[in-house]
Amino acid sequence: MSQAPKGGGGGGDAKITPRSVDYSRWYQDIVQQAQLADHSAVRGCMVIRPNGYALWENIQRGLDTRFKATGHRNAYFPLFIPVSFLSKEAQHVEGFAKECAVVTHHRLRAKEDKSGVEVDPGSKLEEPLIVRPTSETIIWSTYKEWIQSYRDLPILINQWANVVRWEMRTRVFLRTAEFLWQEGHTAHATEAEAVEETKRMLEVYRDFAETELAIPVLRGAKTPGERFAGAIESLSIEAMMQDRKALQAGTSHFLGQNFAKAFDVMFLNAKGQREHVYATSWGVSTRLIGALIMAHSDDTGLVLPPRIASTHVVVVPISKTPEERAKVLPECAKVVAELQGQGLGVHLDDREGMTPGAKYYEWEMKGVPLRIEVGPRDVDSGSLAVARRIVKEVPGEDEKATRSRKKSFLPRAEALAKIRPILDEMQKDLFQRALDFRAKNSRVIDTMEDYEKFFKDGGGFAWVHWAGDKAGEEEMAKRFRTSIRNIPLEGQGPAGSDTPGKCILTGQPSTRRVVMSEAY
Amino acid sequence: MSQAPKGGGGGGDAKITPRSVDYSRWYQDIVQQAQLADHSAVRGCMVIRPNGYALWENIQRGLDTRFKATGHRNAYFPLFIPVSFLSKEAQHVEGFAKECAVVTHHRLRAKEDKSGVEVDPGSKLEEPLIVRPTSETIIWSTYKEWIQSYRDLPILINQWANVVRWEMRTRVFLRTAEFLWQEGHTAHATEAEAVEETKRMLEVYRDFAETELAIPVLRGAKTPGERFAGAIESLSIEAMMQDRKALQAGTSHFLGQNFAKAFDVMFLNAKGQREHVYATSWGVSTRLIGALIMAHSDDTGLVLPPRIASTHVVVVPISKTPEERAKVLPECAKVVAELQGQGLGVHLDDREGMTPGAKYYEWEMKGVPLRIEVGPRDVDSGSLAVARRIVKEVPGEDEKATRSRKKSFLPRAEALAKIRPILDEMQKDLFQRALDFRAKNSRVIDTMEDYEKFFKDGGGFAWVHWAGDKAGEEEMAKRFRTSIRNIPLEGQGPAGSDTPGKCILTGQPSTRRVVMSEAY
Repeated sequence: MSQAPKGGGGGGDAKITPRSVDYSRWYQDIVQQAQLADHSAVRGCMVIRPNGYALWENIQRGLDTRFKATGHRNAYFPLFIPVSFLSKEAQHVEGFAKECAVVTHHRLRAKEDKSGVEVDPGSKLEEPLIVRPTSETIIWSTYKEWIQSYRDLPILINQWANVVRWEMRTRVFLRTAEFLWQEGHTAHATEAEAVEETKRMLEVYRDFAETELAIPVLRGAKTPGERFAGAIESLSIEAMMQDRKALQAGTSHFLGQNFAKAFDVMFLNAKGQREHVYATSWGVSTRLIGALIMAHSDDTGLVLPPRIASTHVVVVPISKTPEERAKVLPECAKVVAELQGQGLGVHLDDREGMTPGAKYYEWEMKGVPLRIEVGPRDVDSGSLAVARRIVKEVPGEDEKATRSRKKSFLPRAEALAKIRPILDEMQKDLFQRALDFRAKNSRVIDTMEDYEKFFKDGGGFAWVHWAGDKAGEEEMAKRFRTSIRNIPLEGQGPAGSDTPGKCILTGQPSTRRVVMSEAY
Repeated sequence: MSQAPKGGGGGGDAKITPRSVDYSRWYQDIVQQAQLADHSAVRGCMVIRPNGYALWENIQRGLDTRFKATGHRNAYFPLFIPVSFLSKEAQHVEGFAKECAVVTHHRLRAKEDKSGVEVDPGSKLEEPLIVRPTSETIIWSTYKEWIQSYRDLPILINQWANVVRWEMRTRVFLRTAEFLWQEGHTAHATEAEAVEETKRMLEVYRDFAETELAIPVLRGAKTPGERFAGAIESLSIEAMMQDRKALQAGTSHFLGQNFAKAFDVMFLNAKGQREHVYATSWGVSTRLIGALIMAHSDDTGLVLPPRIASTHVVVVPISKTPEERAKVLPECAKVVAELQGQGLGVHLDDREGMTPGAKYYEWEMKGVPLRIEVGPRDVDSGSLAVARRIVKEVPGEDEKATRSRKKSFLPRAEALAKIRPILDEMQKDLFQRALDFRAKNSRVIDTMEDYEKFFKDGGGFAWVHWAGDKAGEEEMAKRFRTSIRNIPLEGQGPAGSDTPGKCILTGQPSTRRVVMSEAY
């Protein structure tokens, strides 16, 4: 049985700011009240609380299984990178040798006045180390030792790790100084193989995001200005949040021979010639938890796709007297056991001194997909009340009708047999709801006038032709706060999005549309 | 199917130094040739290679399941700790504010001569941060926010993380600057509950070490001088390696109210009184991989208990001609599929241009418990050759006889049905072998003369009465390089180890024996 979340700072006594009032505040309220994460005493670093970390564990499981199924193995590389390593790849140093945590000393000493400890100046490192913002450099300095011949290739490695980027403006899960992620780093004998790997992992991310997180994503290439520092091509998946902004949910980079050249990693090919190795890297992070929250949750609180929830069902006993409690609890225990036997995460909320209503409120706020209520009359009649955290929207339906669709009273056996199908249905509904929302807020746009109007009216994903340069992108960012999210692969856009046309800004011919929007 | 380890620096062309020649070199040879880990470009930090990391993943799985079964949940706390936090607990600062990685700046800048990057002096932090050597301080500064009343207790949290201690002399897995570990941090309303938790987690560690790693351990309390900095009592499990030295494999600490007082963490008890919270912490690390290697491996290479191995069986096709290969490979594929169907990790080694002998050598060196050989005659006769990585020792048996016990030819169905029972047997045998070895090298000792002789003759675990002080312990360390590993709980020692007696050094009365030995 999953353990009840503990600790203060949440629970049934606080309200969640509605999205329409303040979207950003709504997000923070959910993070805090569902006890997903806290700000820490260390600037920009978060504490991921058990409810939040459980989501990360489920994300890890879903991805790790997919990585292994595609032939990858996990490894672990050092947290620290010598500063000189960064300088070896010209673009990489531009991108990453900026705001980062720099280790300069290796010892503390007692202050003379005994009031505490201070850095011991005598312990200065010969070469400063930075805490990894990403691991290409330390990993390619290692791959050099592992690769001699084509027989040593491919190397297909992933690492689960913490990384640090000294961000000035942070926001829990979305942008923090320290975050958790996975970074895949592969080495290949040919360009074609590496390019194929880059695409394969993008597809793994798409499948994971859509199947597990129920978040539809657009796959595409980043523009040159948005590429990973050191990449030849960066692919991304982009998701639409409920405020219609885009969130980059994962990236997969083809690095060409850039890092192999920087770290002198060569191999003897089958013809006996020495060549530089081809590289990819790809990653997703705890940012996905932010995406999950913003894609599905509502003004009541967190909404979780069942496949990513740890607790699928909360069972709430209802009793007014000790006799009723004695009657109801054994039935609750049986329900819990039967559902656990189905492999579901079930929590029995048998706290005393708390009204059922307060419990409903708490578990809805915390995003548990289903609630089963067991009262004395249910025991007598052999039925159970099953309440869903969400139901499909029916346009024009009044609140009362929605409420009655949310909760159904079913014969015990039928109720228990239906839990899994209901969860599967909820998973599908959430995905469809997000897909419909994205469709409704995506537009094929061909004039600056329409573009301006679109973003004035709330915006979303604008599918526009583009043949502009970096300066053009900057102009669009300045005027509309929009950026090119990616250049989507074919077949993902609204009708008419795959035909050639003219750049919305310059009028120059363009073969493909890009997606522009505001973004996190 | 598990992926074949890739990368150079290992394989069948190098020899492993025998234990009798140089135990320390033997250990390094195994780590390197079984491709478990590498030294990195960063002083004292290791690269954990896929073969090594797979062991860590299996260790994590075994422990995490046990942690959750005992009601714990995972969370994640910041990597960085403000220097001032360390000073808040008087003993803790003594223990941990020494050799550590200190972050003093948060930006790099291009050097004036464009030759690279350097620390930007303008980015100095107001307060330096240290990279966590352990997380009590940052966690208890957080618990303060979570705990108001007894209803918020207990808090039962574990963290999987990397930690850094700037060690001067490092050794892969056993002592490295950065290592991976788990650290449990719990908060309780009463002293009794916290003490019980400390013992419970020690028992979890014992069960894990003995059941999964097949390493027998002694449970006991550390002496005051060996306690965790800030603990009231430290419990440990201690294992004997094949060189008869002890290795501390896990610790569980009762921290009393020390950290609650340091961070002012109080709660309102059921009577409405404010009290300080009681704490425990407990951890094991990647050191366990070192313990695994040193407890079981031999001069041929790595030996893995089947329950911790990812690949249980390697299938090696044997053929001299393309026709034979065509005949043998389909049978291999069937064997692989059937064993995978049993939930086993199976690897098919179908590399061409490599002799079967070279493959046997490689997989024995890498510690795969079982090998199945499939030749054309086996296909004809419907049999399989099953070779064990280890067999029980039979005193006085010659090498040939041992070899023939290692490999048996069995009818196909029988062979496949026997794989699991054989693996279970190997697991048991390894534990028993380690237990016998420890028994053989443990001695109840009552005089300094016998003590000296014992350690001159190779040593092991000396069960001695002790009533000495810190100075006495230092004397024993200086004379014999031995230390008190722990004060074992009753019932674990040789006959006569649980009776009172007189201190071996001082002659003072002693109620219990302690275990002394050399240690890692």
